[in-house]
Amino acid sequence: MAPHGDKSDAADETMVAEAEKRPISTILIVMAMQSEALPVVSKLNLSEDLQSLFPKGVPWVRYRGFYKDLNINLVWPGKDSSLGVDCVGTVPASLVTYASIQALQPDLIINAGTAGGFKAKGACIGDAYVASEVAFCDRRIPIPVFDLYGLGLRQAFSTPNLQKELNLKVGKLSTSDSLHMSTQDEASMVANDAVVKDMEAAAVAYVADLLKVPSVFLKVVIDIKDGEETTAEESSQSFAALERAVTQVIDFINGKSLSDL
Amino acid sequence: MAPHGDKSDAADETMVAEAEKRPISTILIVMAMQSEALPVVSKLNLSEDLQSLFPKGVPWVRYRGFYKDLNINLVWPGKDSSLGVDCVGTVPASLVTYASIQALQPDLIINAGTAGGFKAKGACIGDAYVASEVAFCDRRIPIPVFDLYGLGLRQAFSTPNLQKELNLKVGKLSTSDSLHMSTQDEASMVANDAVVKDMEAAAVAYVADLLKVPSVFLKVVIDIKDGEETTAEESSQSFAALERAVTQVIDFINGKSLSDL
Repeated sequence: MAPHGDKSDAADETMVAEAEKRPISTILIVMAMQSEALPVVSKLNLSEDLQSLFPKGVPWVRYRGFYKDLNINLVWPGKDSSLGVDCVGTVPASLVTYASIQALQPDLIINAGTAGGFKAKGACIGDAYVASEVAFCDRRIPIPVFDLYGLGLRQAFSTPNLQKELNLKVGKLSTSDSLHMSTQDEASMVANDAVVKDMEAAAVAYVADLLKVPSVFLKVVIDIKDGEETTAEESSQSFAALERAVTQVIDFINGKSLSDL
Repeated sequence: MAPHGDKSDAADETMVAEAEKRPISTILIVMAMQSEALPVVSKLNLSEDLQSLFPKGVPWVRYRGFYKDLNINLVWPGKDSSLGVDCVGTVPASLVTYASIQALQPDLIINAGTAGGFKAKGACIGDAYVASEVAFCDRRIPIPVFDLYGLGLRQAFSTPNLQKELNLKVGKLSTSDSLHMSTQDEASMVANDAVVKDMEAAAVAYVADLLKVPSVFLKVVIDIKDGEETTAEESSQSFAALERAVTQVIDFINGKSLSDL
């Protein structure tokens, strides 16, 4: 069956190359917290989709709207139905990303949110980073090859023009399901050469890679992992900076193809 | 809208009560590794579903077949397409569980697999445990309420008759994405009072709870976390013990309703 496989692979590659030249149309923005999502929803004038795409019972929320020439869909995993807090972390992020890709077939995923930054690597509160690559820092499986699987390193979609035009910082991103790092997580992040740390990106990247959707990771530093605690004012400024960064990225994308990014 | 909500809740409860009295028909067995799945596939005479239920590109595998009066579906997340190792851990388990529930609408989920056990809590290699409750031990979010969300404690479906009839051990189960425990994971497991530790159950429980599917967790101890290393022979015996335990549970379930378990 090799010749058939080769033909099919070649056809797939041709389709991907053609898709990269078409103007981007449908965008899926994946966020983890309501406080991150709402400023963007307001700025882009999106409306909540009350006829949910998602199964009965799940708390996942989708906002939608047309902004310039783009069909924008912003999803977040909603509030935990028992506890009332945002469903942060890798499992809800992977599920809502999967279900949204299936329903919407987006051209591009933007996983946007706040993150911790490392001052030793040059990160300051309010900085907007585009991740060059993402990895997990809390999946330690010390068996050959499984160790690499646990790390789950994935390249983000390459966006040299976007980074240059918007003057965004670029760095490596590590993901864990814990807000506070264990000694082992910290060692893994140092090994990953991570500049920023979040709680979802590597899972979103895993799903996007499975389903072959290009994805970019836009993270605004809200606290410094190797420095002093963030003040309430700094937190508030970081959410505003996130909204501005997402809007700038969307404005840049409008009218462009994937290969223009 | 409260009266409508109340009516709808009452109707839901009536449906659940009726469902609990009907004979169980469709079973979804979720496993994480090929070496766990294949002995069960062989014993229950299941066949691989070549017209996959799942989207193109995902490595997830489904085996299906009728066994006695039961429609059995065994799924596992397959092999990582780049690295070739089993897709263990919470993210692939949650995705394949979600997609399988959507496609199959099972009456019951059995998450079965091997696990680590704590000798200090009475676990021995080869012991088959049914989890009373499951929780994460590697999601530390030290903010009030988010800490409980991170823990993600969920009760398993109650199966007193099954436990008694098959003489299964019962204990609490902790899940993490790491094979080897950090000091913090260990402290969390002690706080959880965990007897067994796996890499998927709390994520399967999360998805099953979201979509309201009763779920049980059957784990056979393959290594002792607070003792000596497992030999190759002990590993092999544990996979055989897992197959026997799954078959016994399926035989017990056949012809019964959820409320008989």
